[in-house]
Amino acid sequence: MSSPRNSPSPSTSSYENAPTRSVSVHGEKFAYRELGPEDGVPLILLIHLAGVLDNWDPRVVDGLAARRRIIAFDNRGVGGSSGSTPDTIESMARDAVLFIRALGFDEVDLFGLSMGGFIAQVIVAQEPHLVRKVILAGTGPAGGPGIDKVPALSIQATLKGALTRQDPKLSLFFTESADSQRAGRAFLERLKERTHNRDKDISLPSFRAQLKAIKKWGRQVPSDLSGIRQPVLVANGENDRMVPSQNTRDLAARLPRGELVPLYPDAGHGGIFQCHDEFVPRALEFLES
Amino acid sequence: MSSPRNSPSPSTSSYENAPTRSVSVHGEKFAYRELGPEDGVPLILLIHLAGVLDNWDPRVVDGLAARRRIIAFDNRGVGGSSGSTPDTIESMARDAVLFIRALGFDEVDLFGLSMGGFIAQVIVAQEPHLVRKVILAGTGPAGGPGIDKVPALSIQATLKGALTRQDPKLSLFFTESADSQRAGRAFLERLKERTHNRDKDISLPSFRAQLKAIKKWGRQVPSDLSGIRQPVLVANGENDRMVPSQNTRDLAARLPRGELVPLYPDAGHGGIFQCHDEFVPRALEFLES
Repeated sequence: MSSPRNSPSPSTSSYENAPTRSVSVHGEKFAYRELGPEDGVPLILLIHLAGVLDNWDPRVVDGLAARRRIIAFDNRGVGGSSGSTPDTIESMARDAVLFIRALGFDEVDLFGLSMGGFIAQVIVAQEPHLVRKVILAGTGPAGGPGIDKVPALSIQATLKGALTRQDPKLSLFFTESADSQRAGRAFLERLKERTHNRDKDISLPSFRAQLKAIKKWGRQVPSDLSGIRQPVLVANGENDRMVPSQNTRDLAARLPRGELVPLYPDAGHGGIFQCHDEFVPRALEFLES
Repeated sequence: MSSPRNSPSPSTSSYENAPTRSVSVHGEKFAYRELGPEDGVPLILLIHLAGVLDNWDPRVVDGLAARRRIIAFDNRGVGGSSGSTPDTIESMARDAVLFIRALGFDEVDLFGLSMGGFIAQVIVAQEPHLVRKVILAGTGPAGGPGIDKVPALSIQATLKGALTRQDPKLSLFFTESADSQRAGRAFLERLKERTHNRDKDISLPSFRAQLKAIKKWGRQVPSDLSGIRQPVLVANGENDRMVPSQNTRDLAARLPRGELVPLYPDAGHGGIFQCHDEFVPRALEFLES
């Protein structure tokens, strides 16, 4: 059981209305949003490449917040967080730990999506006493196949998206099928539900620093995951073209207490958003078991 | 005096309503729009990097079409034109000549903007008898200073624009001043005036081919412009950060019959759009003198 040293935040009914707060970490301001019950082990959300607070699907956050205390935050130098964005996953993990401790927590659950999942793996390996349970989605281990291609793929999709005035997440997070594309457009609409106090978009230098960090992670020597004793729930779509789905299976197999959610059919990197109806109860069950 | 071999097109009152036609050139379909009086030497518009038919400012086209026959077209493999986009300016110039001849013209005026200005320079050098007068805007000679940086600058601005959901043309075509940015937003709104039968956006492979062509042009040995006998009107903003304005002055100085429009103050690469009120009468005067 963990409780913050700071004064408790008033509980908020939905992510759409959650105020954006900040906490000082070594002189830098870290932006975050909090909602859900005020007690219990908080679930810290670790976002994907280029993501800010507004990139979390409100259905997923609200679904989890119905029963868990949820805290989403911006990485250093991204969105509402000040400072300059580091270009290694290790450094992002150190930031996340400092942020968690700055809020006064000594035990948390982690939910890392894509790059956030890389960060979560480093946190749990380096600060095992801080972490109770982990959820990894659309992610892979250091050195996992195809991860070093994420930067080139992301730049390509971003340029293409700019030329065709389409959000690159449609092609990066969803499959080409009509169903998945429809789900993608619905997801993009949900991301717009919050209309006030939206977060700042990522800057180009921060985006580049993250791309560099991801490339290094993809080229890193595979780490030994056998020392991770926490329960880890691993989820993804079966057709992830960013962090190939094979990485998800590989994580589940190599983590001693890894638990694989059957890969979502006709879904990609954004599988947990596309299939939020299935993912949310499964994640809650995992966190509460 | 030139007249098309094909049946004359019905005259159209505005670029917004100009039908998109096509003509076959060596088995490829070239998309174009035509408006203005049906007689007189037609003015062929040569568009900028990534541009399609919908990238011409309707105020400029309509202004010129009030007195001149105007024909805008899509380069090979771009927008509504089929085929694959060449990666040299020389090859684009060959395409343009084939397109002009396919429409049955044996004498035209050229109006090239940025990359379109590179193409116009090659056409006039290689097909001097085809060209009567030339207008060059926001462009420069082969090997001109800074032109080889256009691809990197364009990619950077496009990525930044995608991350911040802002049209990259705002930063590439206009200065940072409040006035120029306001003019930029007004220009972007004008580009949306046409709501039906809009052109297809450029594809990523075609964009890349054009970037390659521009980089080669920027690194080319300067060509001898002293053989160009046509009158050439040269215009630009005084703060062009894409094709630095020095190139505009240089063109006017090196072209035997070059005529420099005083550079538009507090305007950039899109100076002729920002200052369309001044540019249009100046261009008409030049074409009709």
